[in-house]
Amino acid sequence: MKKMCSIRFVPDGKRVEVEEGSTILDAAYKAKVDISSICGGRGYCGKCQVIITDEKQNATPVTLDESEQLTQEKVDAGYRIACKTRLKGDMTVKIPDESRTGKQKLVVMGVEPETKFEPPVMKLYLELPEVTIHDRVADDLRIINNLRERGIRVDKIDYKVALKLPDLIRKANWKVTAVIRYDGELIDLEGGDTTANNFGFAVDIGTTKVAGFLVDLKSGALLRAEGIMNPQIPFGEDLMTRIAQIVRKPENLKKLQEVTVEGINGLIKQICETAKIDQGQISELTIVGNTAMHHFFLGANIAHVAMAPYPPAVAKSTEVKAETLGIDMRPTGYVHLLPNVAGFIGADAVADVLATEMHRQGDLVLLIDVGTNTEVMLGNSKRIVSCSTASGPAFEGAHIKYGMRASTGAIERVKIDPVKLEPAYSTIESAKPRGICGSGIIDIIAEMLKAGIIDTTGRICASHERIRSGDRGMEYIIARKEETQNGQQDIVITQQDIREVQKAKAAIHTGCTIMMKQLGISSMDIRKLTIAGAFGMYIDPVNAITLGMIPEVPLERIEFVGSTAGSGARMALKSVTARKMADELALKMGYIELAAEPIFQEEYLNSMNLPHADYSLYTETMNRIRAPRTAKIYRRPKTQ
Amino acid sequence: MKKMCSIRFVPDGKRVEVEEGSTILDAAYKAKVDISSICGGRGYCGKCQVIITDEKQNATPVTLDESEQLTQEKVDAGYRIACKTRLKGDMTVKIPDESRTGKQKLVVMGVEPETKFEPPVMKLYLELPEVTIHDRVADDLRIINNLRERGIRVDKIDYKVALKLPDLIRKANWKVTAVIRYDGELIDLEGGDTTANNFGFAVDIGTTKVAGFLVDLKSGALLRAEGIMNPQIPFGEDLMTRIAQIVRKPENLKKLQEVTVEGINGLIKQICETAKIDQGQISELTIVGNTAMHHFFLGANIAHVAMAPYPPAVAKSTEVKAETLGIDMRPTGYVHLLPNVAGFIGADAVADVLATEMHRQGDLVLLIDVGTNTEVMLGNSKRIVSCSTASGPAFEGAHIKYGMRASTGAIERVKIDPVKLEPAYSTIESAKPRGICGSGIIDIIAEMLKAGIIDTTGRICASHERIRSGDRGMEYIIARKEETQNGQQDIVITQQDIREVQKAKAAIHTGCTIMMKQLGISSMDIRKLTIAGAFGMYIDPVNAITLGMIPEVPLERIEFVGSTAGSGARMALKSVTARKMADELALKMGYIELAAEPIFQEEYLNSMNLPHADYSLYTETMNRIRAPRTAKIYRRPKTQ
Repeated sequence: MKKMCSIRFVPDGKRVEVEEGSTILDAAYKAKVDISSICGGRGYCGKCQVIITDEKQNATPVTLDESEQLTQEKVDAGYRIACKTRLKGDMTVKIPDESRTGKQKLVVMGVEPETKFEPPVMKLYLELPEVTIHDRVADDLRIINNLRERGIRVDKIDYKVALKLPDLIRKANWKVTAVIRYDGELIDLEGGDTTANNFGFAVDIGTTKVAGFLVDLKSGALLRAEGIMNPQIPFGEDLMTRIAQIVRKPENLKKLQEVTVEGINGLIKQICETAKIDQGQISELTIVGNTAMHHFFLGANIAHVAMAPYPPAVAKSTEVKAETLGIDMRPTGYVHLLPNVAGFIGADAVADVLATEMHRQGDLVLLIDVGTNTEVMLGNSKRIVSCSTASGPAFEGAHIKYGMRASTGAIERVKIDPVKLEPAYSTIESAKPRGICGSGIIDIIAEMLKAGIIDTTGRICASHERIRSGDRGMEYIIARKEETQNGQQDIVITQQDIREVQKAKAAIHTGCTIMMKQLGISSMDIRKLTIAGAFGMYIDPVNAITLGMIPEVPLERIEFVGSTAGSGARMALKSVTARKMADELALKMGYIELAAEPIFQEEYLNSMNLPHADYSLYTETMNRIRAPRTAKIYRRPKTQ
Repeated sequence: MKKMCSIRFVPDGKRVEVEEGSTILDAAYKAKVDISSICGGRGYCGKCQVIITDEKQNATPVTLDESEQLTQEKVDAGYRIACKTRLKGDMTVKIPDESRTGKQKLVVMGVEPETKFEPPVMKLYLELPEVTIHDRVADDLRIINNLRERGIRVDKIDYKVALKLPDLIRKANWKVTAVIRYDGELIDLEGGDTTANNFGFAVDIGTTKVAGFLVDLKSGALLRAEGIMNPQIPFGEDLMTRIAQIVRKPENLKKLQEVTVEGINGLIKQICETAKIDQGQISELTIVGNTAMHHFFLGANIAHVAMAPYPPAVAKSTEVKAETLGIDMRPTGYVHLLPNVAGFIGADAVADVLATEMHRQGDLVLLIDVGTNTEVMLGNSKRIVSCSTASGPAFEGAHIKYGMRASTGAIERVKIDPVKLEPAYSTIESAKPRGICGSGIIDIIAEMLKAGIIDTTGRICASHERIRSGDRGMEYIIARKEETQNGQQDIVITQQDIREVQKAKAAIHTGCTIMMKQLGISSMDIRKLTIAGAFGMYIDPVNAITLGMIPEVPLERIEFVGSTAGSGARMALKSVTARKMADELALKMGYIELAAEPIFQEEYLNSMNLPHADYSLYTETMNRIRAPRTAKIYRRPKTQ
């Protein structure tokens, strides 16, 4: 057996035992202390910086790789990268403020259209006639007959419910509440009148966040919404990494499933405790997520989703008893997973369409759900096509030197004086800046472009006292170290950061362009450009256009709808018609595999420019920017 | 912890360890040696006679009760009653031949009408199109679409099957066999073409015996039928005793369920091994049994079935996944339990009706399924009423001094010379007689009545050298000890034995009478008298009428149909229409609670007579018998 090391975390005061050879990050996860790590321990984000305050000799020495991610100043101050430092013995580790995720807005509500309220589970109070010598009907038929008299058809009784009927009915003195599913299954029976308690739960499993919604199935009212970080993150920040972990080691699928179920159970518990509701009274749970999240949750083989042409294992909507999946709710209730469309267009995209109702629009709608994977849908009531773009986690702050999630101290809005080239910024909760979150990053680069600090290829080309050479190429100082929370480093945006954002926005734009070409339309034909996703809520639309992240359309056509994946999950929880509509949509939605399109490569390269190599697509924008124009349009040689 | 005692059984040579204080019968059950016990260890049958050959001092002393069940001769020879002898230490126990159950005919086939072959599970071989860049349909939809093109609707996939699809399909090189249930569920998928193997299994759980039938679901052919003793017997011979054990100690329900499932699993294994068939290829299992057997198997609360007005917990037909119940077949296949009618009219009675097709007859049919509980059904295509009569285990040999089951050496046919009063008998397998089985008992008493050895009240009234006084009143010698297998005792029928048979036949006849009165008919209106049940097959119909066990009808109207409960189970296995018909029948069949009928008591007393107190009901019979006629008709005082 391996030696155990005892690690104490300060200022949390939590202590944990881990095996010798574990990393400090492993220990931090085990101790459940708040530590920032965007890459989930894979070593590239450099966010999990900690300070060993005691027994430094019990850590492996600082590697070259580590010192590259830390400044020499930090190395001298005892800073380490938690995921790269392995333990040889006991120690005390401090997690500095800048390595804490801080308070994060974890749930962003999405718009939700009016839906006809048709809950999947209803409760009905019954006063049953007692068994007598003249009425010897069996217990199960007694209930079925009583319900039939009231116009309710029940033709299936959960086996375990049937077993408990006799005692329950008699103990309750023949006064019981039937819990009935819309498809005619009696999923439970309770003593007395419990009709006041009938709840449902909707879950949106995002790659980064998991949102839970407690809904009253009597009224349809949303009682509570909360979110947690996706507990799969230790297996990798983006889903391709998580999938790779499973392909490498198939047992990891089970682990991913377990942490996901545990996470959802934690969320249910947390919400029900706050709402003072018995979680056993949750009779139905709906789940949306991208195809990978869907498969992880079910424990379905994901390996083939990772390889072209990426077929999902399960696309159809799926219903499984809660007890089978280990969800802490009414054990005989159902978990309903909305359908997937393709390997990278999952139930979350179906939910987006459902909630934005683009399938009811006569006019063309472009729907973009911005996330680590960005789903793009284009269409109307006649036809909808979709694609998935690997926009990556840059907008979540990963791969960005001072990138961070949208939490306290994140720079979220930036203006740059086009003459003086001096920035002005605001932070979340007006705290001293700790880093830059996605909306801030978009603002900065758009402002740099407008001010001419960068040219249309994204190259930093201006001279200014805020512009200097750094370890990641040229960089522009947003906040000087005196202004920052730790007071030790300037917060900058680097040339490399700009490249990361260009790649991310090019991916999204390429998706939009290829789909518009498929439908033979131009951006002016888009009557509504809908931006969904929690992150989308905070984007400045003008800046998003300026970057060329989204097509140039009149501003009044742009709408922000928030997390509509969660909205769709709630709709499917409150309305069986919405659920059926989701099934139809999933079959109806077309899917375009971008990488397989002949024009993909050239369109992607053209989209790398700011806003785009083809200026004619961004005439309004081009009037606004001062940037030197150096872009050229790529064309692939025509095949003969 | 209690001391353990080591018991060796000879001639079997089996050794077993049991706790001090256990009975020898407990040890014999644990060692799984062949030992006869009709009452299941409750101490009244006296059949479990054993001889302690070594270490006699390690047994509790012979009690008065025990010596009453054994002759003094046997006590002197070291005989003990196994269920009444408790262990204080190690010993060797011999099980003499007369205490062995011997080879028993365990399966008696029943008639089975032609049914339209519509199996609940079909297999279909599919050569799926491979996933390509132009056909990225999900694995589940790929199968569903392929099946739809072939006219097969699948709209549900077992969750566990969905999980294994991706690997399975690819390993099998896109050539797979779909296992599809009639209700549109894909219950399994197998690599390659396995359509040749598609099996079903039907089970008839009788109170005493369990019969299993392996059926080919491609053709409907019956491949094999075998039976075992019901493994619940150690909990009591008759079902009221078993129910009482549960009422006393609710944990016993779980034990009963476990032994039942184990027993069925053993039967499946045994049959599949002989038939050289992979039991995992059994995709559907149907179950019939009386309501108690049904509830024991499901683990449903039986307590209320034991108390008036005896409502079952579950009457509706029930379907549960095999893995949920622990049945060793395709785990994702279903177990289908046929519906019950009432607390004492179970799925076996529904199966009887289904198989005899009395529900299709224009003429009135009286259907009697003779067993420990005898179900009686009367009706035709318009109406069917049913009742259950507690005929008890006398016909199985219990409560009868020399009663035994129908196995080697049982006296099964008897004639008595009406002048000389000398008997002639035949035994099963022409072995030396060991005892008398049900059909022999009926023959003897009917012959005694015809010969005038007993009068119409059942009293032994003749004088003969074969008639003598014994420990159970007067007795008539059937076989002298020299003729018997053990050569030690005469095989006799006692006055008490005759009373037991009178009670049993009176119960059945009372059921028939009350139902006929309900329908306002006389015995001449019965166009067909159908006797079902394994035991029924061996009854001499004339003697059954002579005893007044069944109403007097012209002999040509009597038919024997064998174990139609098993036939009904097979029909429900081969035809979903038959299954639906069973559901309709269960709802349609009326039920009469005999004990609640005002005339029950008087009719029962009248039926105690041989053949009946009202001779006018048995005019033909009365012409045949020489017995002194002493019966009088009971009439309850009319209430004012």
